[in-house]
Amino acid sequence: MKPKKKLRKPSQPLIETLADNIRRLRRERELSQEELASLCGLHRTYVGSVERGERNITLGSLELFAAALDVTAIDLLTREDA
Amino acid sequence: MKPKKKLRKPSQPLIETLADNIRRLRRERELSQEELASLCGLHRTYVGSVERGERNITLGSLELFAAALDVTAIDLLTREDA
Repeated sequence: MKPKKKLRKPSQPLIETLADNIRRLRRERELSQEELASLCGLHRTYVGSVERGERNITLGSLELFAAALDVTAIDLLTREDA
Repeated sequence: MKPKKKLRKPSQPLIETLADNIRRLRRERELSQEELASLCGLHRTYVGSVERGERNITLGSLELFAAALDVTAIDLLTREDA
């Protein structure tokens, strides 16, 4: 193995960054969890568990959230203070 | 719903961008699929299917690939020509 870059460790797991961003953006858009779930085609309780950082979600679900919140998947995985 | 930003559609699904990046970075690091799988703690056939864009992988697996390839998860989801 020949690493070409310095090791960069994320200070926060992706799942937690995602949870924070989804909750923040949902509130900014004045959506309830139920409304966001409906936009994503997912269940309200699933959205709640994602917002609590309890779900190891797939890239497919990530894209559903990004489309519903009108941001990119990368935006959802990037810390707001980064 | 009150969208605040312009809609940005990804030109390529995340899964395909990820597949391209993992294959490219693995080869740059002169690793076989088996060696990368071993670094990730995953099976060689799983790595192969991810590199073919066949897997809707989770954020947890994404972080394993990123750590093994010494890049960030965001790097793996960003098109090289972006």
